[in-house]
Amino acid sequence: MSYTDALKDINRTADRSVTQQIIDVISAAIASGELAPGDRLPATREIAEIVGVNHLTAVRAYRRMREHGQVTARVGAGTFVRDPRTVDAPADEPEWQRYVLPPTTPSAYTRAASSAYDAASDPGLIPLAVGYPPTRMLPDALWARHTADALEDLGAGALQYGPIEGVPAFREQLAHLQGEEPDDVMVVNGAMQGLSLAARALIRPGEAVAVESPTFMGTVEVLRQVGARMIPIPVDEDGIDVDELARIAVREDLRAVFLQARLQNPTGYDLSPARAERLVELARRHAFFIIDDEVWAELRFGGDDPGPLRDLAPAHVITVGSFSKTLGGGLRLGWMRASGDMIERLALTKHSDDLHSPTLTQHAAARLLAAGDYPEHLARIRDEYLRGRDLMLDALDRHLRPVARWTEPQGGSSILVTLDADLDDRTLLAEAERCGVSVVPGSALTSGPPASTMVRLAYGYVEPDAIETGVRRLAQAIRAVGAERRARQAFPLS
Amino acid sequence: MSYTDALKDINRTADRSVTQQIIDVISAAIASGELAPGDRLPATREIAEIVGVNHLTAVRAYRRMREHGQVTARVGAGTFVRDPRTVDAPADEPEWQRYVLPPTTPSAYTRAASSAYDAASDPGLIPLAVGYPPTRMLPDALWARHTADALEDLGAGALQYGPIEGVPAFREQLAHLQGEEPDDVMVVNGAMQGLSLAARALIRPGEAVAVESPTFMGTVEVLRQVGARMIPIPVDEDGIDVDELARIAVREDLRAVFLQARLQNPTGYDLSPARAERLVELARRHAFFIIDDEVWAELRFGGDDPGPLRDLAPAHVITVGSFSKTLGGGLRLGWMRASGDMIERLALTKHSDDLHSPTLTQHAAARLLAAGDYPEHLARIRDEYLRGRDLMLDALDRHLRPVARWTEPQGGSSILVTLDADLDDRTLLAEAERCGVSVVPGSALTSGPPASTMVRLAYGYVEPDAIETGVRRLAQAIRAVGAERRARQAFPLS
Repeated sequence: MSYTDALKDINRTADRSVTQQIIDVISAAIASGELAPGDRLPATREIAEIVGVNHLTAVRAYRRMREHGQVTARVGAGTFVRDPRTVDAPADEPEWQRYVLPPTTPSAYTRAASSAYDAASDPGLIPLAVGYPPTRMLPDALWARHTADALEDLGAGALQYGPIEGVPAFREQLAHLQGEEPDDVMVVNGAMQGLSLAARALIRPGEAVAVESPTFMGTVEVLRQVGARMIPIPVDEDGIDVDELARIAVREDLRAVFLQARLQNPTGYDLSPARAERLVELARRHAFFIIDDEVWAELRFGGDDPGPLRDLAPAHVITVGSFSKTLGGGLRLGWMRASGDMIERLALTKHSDDLHSPTLTQHAAARLLAAGDYPEHLARIRDEYLRGRDLMLDALDRHLRPVARWTEPQGGSSILVTLDADLDDRTLLAEAERCGVSVVPGSALTSGPPASTMVRLAYGYVEPDAIETGVRRLAQAIRAVGAERRARQAFPLS
Repeated sequence: MSYTDALKDINRTADRSVTQQIIDVISAAIASGELAPGDRLPATREIAEIVGVNHLTAVRAYRRMREHGQVTARVGAGTFVRDPRTVDAPADEPEWQRYVLPPTTPSAYTRAASSAYDAASDPGLIPLAVGYPPTRMLPDALWARHTADALEDLGAGALQYGPIEGVPAFREQLAHLQGEEPDDVMVVNGAMQGLSLAARALIRPGEAVAVESPTFMGTVEVLRQVGARMIPIPVDEDGIDVDELARIAVREDLRAVFLQARLQNPTGYDLSPARAERLVELARRHAFFIIDDEVWAELRFGGDDPGPLRDLAPAHVITVGSFSKTLGGGLRLGWMRASGDMIERLALTKHSDDLHSPTLTQHAAARLLAAGDYPEHLARIRDEYLRGRDLMLDALDRHLRPVARWTEPQGGSSILVTLDADLDDRTLLAEAERCGVSVVPGSALTSGPPASTMVRLAYGYVEPDAIETGVRRLAQAIRAVGAERRARQAFPLS
């Protein structure tokens, strides 16, 4: 039977994939000599037709054979049986990359974050790990209307390239929202890009940067990427420990302090006005920047709003913020605020990254803000975060009171839980997932090893009626890991 | 008259801005002693009400006074007249940044690119500089329909965070379009982000990278940003000079070659199949990556399509591409294709940059592709680029024949013009802008000084009936700069 007949006999319902069956048939033809070195193979479209499958399947089969060195492709000419006598270059195998790529060590963040999206959509896990907004509250109808209107009014211009710093109408709305000047506002793809741009524009490898501990895990990752020497500064209910920072600023040449002055993630607390005053005084005296991440600042349930830290010292404070927690993280709609030379530096860094942020999204957001639709939406989604917080505090009280203490956030989406016992938080994470709940371990929230065993819980994304079950599963995991530890301690040599 | 009365008298139609008038009134009250050190100033909202202006204006006035050290703000307390005796920290002035920011040298790219958007929208300049698509041909109605449908079907889910590598439905459509496997496709914010991610994932400062010369100016900038040691390789009508590359690969430890194998920007030529074969053989032998920027590949008017370079050696070739030139640059809708460990590396780098690309845009694009709307649109916009090319070649023939030669592109949007005379291209650019036409000087397209005087002209964005005038103005500028140069040479000591 010729190999073309064998291709016709390929069976879609067989155990082996169709791709593998194509490979086997052609490999057999090469082995038997039916196809000789240098022979041209049928075009992938012909193969697809003979087998009765998608063109892509044939492309995939030929690629695998190339990777295994069985065939070779010539641009514009086709695919040929490889002649081992005349071809001296090695086959095209991705394994070569392993020895030339710069070395990387996966961080706690990498491990935690790369599974966040999967965990968020895994029906078997109650997602207390992710700081997403509640999907059910995102304003899809509002967004549809303003997007349609923007396209209607602006036509094809809404799809064209735009200015680096952002669409003027959107920058003006952002400035208005925050008592800022439009020139000092730049649009970025979410607060994460803001943090990344600030780090890359400011910090050279090895330079010292102070960072809240614990903090938003993305901040640690961004600083790790630029090679910053991170100095962790403790956080309490009044925010970052400014006394500790003052001691460090004397002996270190600090480039910057990264923090969240309002509704800090993961504690949910504010920087106190007194500490804020001292912080900006330190920044002036020691000439460092303060990068204030305000992603949660608008979602306040209680406590007096201390106002933007940037208002105290606009030449020293760079603010990043976004609509990710209010309009939706999928929009990637964030901003930075900075004064002086800094905003131009940031714009140049952004420009060589991705030119500018998507224009249509900015036009739609500018319209949503100009129409006055934002405050009402914000109030609605804020109530939903608050509902989640109250349910979670209740559940913590019911299930974790004997073994842990936790913060009582005034806003935002997260609670920091500190365990009384000293457990390995990776083991705890694994056990929690086995029990059906995902959480963020403390080691992903600090630049060094955490001082105690911590877990971050988020109440914004999860369905309200799953919160209690989630916390109960966490309590179950803590008991299991604690019992195992006690057993080990009782038999230390086992 | 008290200062509050003086505030009431502020005149919106005066020569001085309202902001400045507020500052003057309060400064006078401080100078006269009416406001003493430590006194609390009215809240900005009160000031706004008294003066009868926007709240933002009062905020701006207070900020300026803070910057001048006249007043000080305390979070949650208000703004106070500064007491020079007790305050020892310097005022908050952006000037301090100048001495702490890492040094930067503005590159030819920075200069050329930062004015590109302005030049594109300057009615006094015929925009032959920018590689934008023709706005009039962008598919706004199509985009409106698919965006509305995506929001209708997916609801609020279309606004939620998504996976790092991109929305699965879009990756599948991209894979299908290019005979690729979905796992090897990652979504990025335009090809620029693809270039930037590849450079940052692969290259450490000081490492050697070969780059076409001349090339896309963004490539030079991205490589400059990562501190690559760029080795320029000449390009001719068969693409990059592979003989030259072979000589360099022997003596340099090349990390990568950056090129555009199809419809190169700025020449419009393809890499010949024979050279492509040799290039991938070199990549295998010397273990380097090839980064192939395919942004123009779909816009072909003539010549045989040699097919994707990546098909020859998927483990070595990383492809970047985008819909910027076909659906619109404002969408920031691009992709990368890579195999093996590489795609994971790129995803991690992207994740610490901006988490992921906007989800709704990807859903809309996936629908546009799935509906089969793309090929017809592509054919229509391609015809428009072709029309521009023909008009420009005619105009060049009419106005520049005696003083220059140029490429005849088989697709894309640009023509490389090389002048017979050796003129300073920055002087030429300035003169061209005086004559009312914007062009890209050769020095923005090369990593070192260009070998001859070159200018890149783009025919895609400009209105067709302005092309001839634009080229005539360029010819006029060339004559003017040439005449000045001859005059200088005749009197070399002057």
